[in-house]
Amino acid sequence: MSGLIALDVGGTTIKGALVSPGGVIVERSVHPTGFGEEAAAAVVAAAELLTAAAARHGLTVAAIGVVTPGIVDSERGVVGYASNLGWRDLPLRDRVAAATGVRVVLGHDVRSAGEAEGRFGAARGHRDYLHIAIGTGIAATVVIDGRPVVGSAGGAGELGHVPVRDDGEPCGCGQLGCLEVYASAGGLARRYERIAGRPASAAEIHARLGDDPVADRVWADAVAALVRGITTHALVIEPDLVVLGGGLAQAGADLLRPLEEGLRGALAWRTPPEVRLSELGPDAAVLGAALLAARAAGVDMPLSA
Amino acid sequence: MSGLIALDVGGTTIKGALVSPGGVIVERSVHPTGFGEEAAAAVVAAAELLTAAAARHGLTVAAIGVVTPGIVDSERGVVGYASNLGWRDLPLRDRVAAATGVRVVLGHDVRSAGEAEGRFGAARGHRDYLHIAIGTGIAATVVIDGRPVVGSAGGAGELGHVPVRDDGEPCGCGQLGCLEVYASAGGLARRYERIAGRPASAAEIHARLGDDPVADRVWADAVAALVRGITTHALVIEPDLVVLGGGLAQAGADLLRPLEEGLRGALAWRTPPEVRLSELGPDAAVLGAALLAARAAGVDMPLSA
Repeated sequence: MSGLIALDVGGTTIKGALVSPGGVIVERSVHPTGFGEEAAAAVVAAAELLTAAAARHGLTVAAIGVVTPGIVDSERGVVGYASNLGWRDLPLRDRVAAATGVRVVLGHDVRSAGEAEGRFGAARGHRDYLHIAIGTGIAATVVIDGRPVVGSAGGAGELGHVPVRDDGEPCGCGQLGCLEVYASAGGLARRYERIAGRPASAAEIHARLGDDPVADRVWADAVAALVRGITTHALVIEPDLVVLGGGLAQAGADLLRPLEEGLRGALAWRTPPEVRLSELGPDAAVLGAALLAARAAGVDMPLSA
Repeated sequence: MSGLIALDVGGTTIKGALVSPGGVIVERSVHPTGFGEEAAAAVVAAAELLTAAAARHGLTVAAIGVVTPGIVDSERGVVGYASNLGWRDLPLRDRVAAATGVRVVLGHDVRSAGEAEGRFGAARGHRDYLHIAIGTGIAATVVIDGRPVVGSAGGAGELGHVPVRDDGEPCGCGQLGCLEVYASAGGLARRYERIAGRPASAAEIHARLGDDPVADRVWADAVAALVRGITTHALVIEPDLVVLGGGLAQAGADLLRPLEEGLRGALAWRTPPEVRLSELGPDAAVLGAALLAARAAGVDMPLSA
């Protein structure tokens, strides 16, 4: 019997999963990522650990899917650049393959998560959709006719740096008024602290809505910024669905409802896209990695979280 | 010997072409379009006239390609909606086919023009590009991996209505600050007249650059608006090329140079797309229609203007 290994490499942790032939996650693992060479070694160690776990379950590993942030060249199996991991031109695919003796596929975390939502999650049955991951920053996957858009140099999906305000507040990227300055979890917390003079996380800001005018204000700004970013994209690409993932999507209806209302106003003369919350949640990227592995192994399995 | 007929249906004129088996336009025709039922009859008449011309040249017509503005359903051969032609649910493909007895394909004018630039024009050899037609309004074709993006309801490419200013000037679509308010030929003329108190066409405004502060101002606003619109798109889709077509592209370097400079500034941390002028000019859409016809007839010909 053969299984699959999926690894989602994040800035803080590596989430691993061993997937059974039936598409069920039979074992999970979490490892601290580290930085630079240490982080590369941690990915290899995670793959080895899950390969050993597979043996315990009586499974042969058919393929390993690894997804990472940054500029990922899937064809060459190389992470071209990932700032938060300190990687540049890292041949991660071959490193993991050499250590495990198993076929490895490398992919991009957000694009894989977006694809997984389309196969097993909130975008099932949709061919044209936009998946937005709202966490510390904001990244997106554009799926057109069922395929994620990679971009001419592997850098598509930078919705977080779309300008949403004239003379807006500065962003880490060096520009002004980027979407993620206003609407990422990190941006919400930074703006709240600057205006209120005391710190609060995005979750705390959400919990204070209706009771705290500063919370209300930064939340409304975040929604307006998302409306602007999504509108701009929807006019040119016309997806019929927007899926909201990442930590901020846990705000649920408090994010969804004002966003839908804003889009109806901004796209008055067209049908605005439907907006839904992610169904796969924090498992989206690891399921996306499993999807890559399944494809490489030539199996078509109904994965589930 | 078989030839092709191509028809580009615009709001004012229908441009027709008879294309030889070698891909050369051997006869052209121009007809006034009219409105509503009259416009539909004019398309049929143009097709009949070029069918007769084909007979004179000793050519059998293998297929007819017709491109129109609006919401075009190529599969059903129906123009769903075209406001400037007064069409709603018009089965144009079957009308032309019934009158001529020839196989007809229906397509979208801007998307076909964008595709033609990729096959025979400025975007030759590019898989991921944005083609912007700047005329009375602004429309765009997004080509990803060699295929034009249609959108979930056939309405992709509305770059002209992307918001580029907070609290911007009103647009005919009911929104504020749309790109085409600032950067279309129509928008330039309207803004010039409002500020200067006297009328001027976009071509006249262009001719006065450096001598007329109002011309300089509205031109700079147009470039800034285009930079914003293209930047927003480039961050999410990452084309490696932008092709400028439509009447305003005739401004050449006066449009191209400041636009390139603006994009370098706005996309400082990425490689900005190259910007080029259309090579096919006003023939882009009719060559796109010929391309559709060639595909329907199963021939692969190197078309030229």
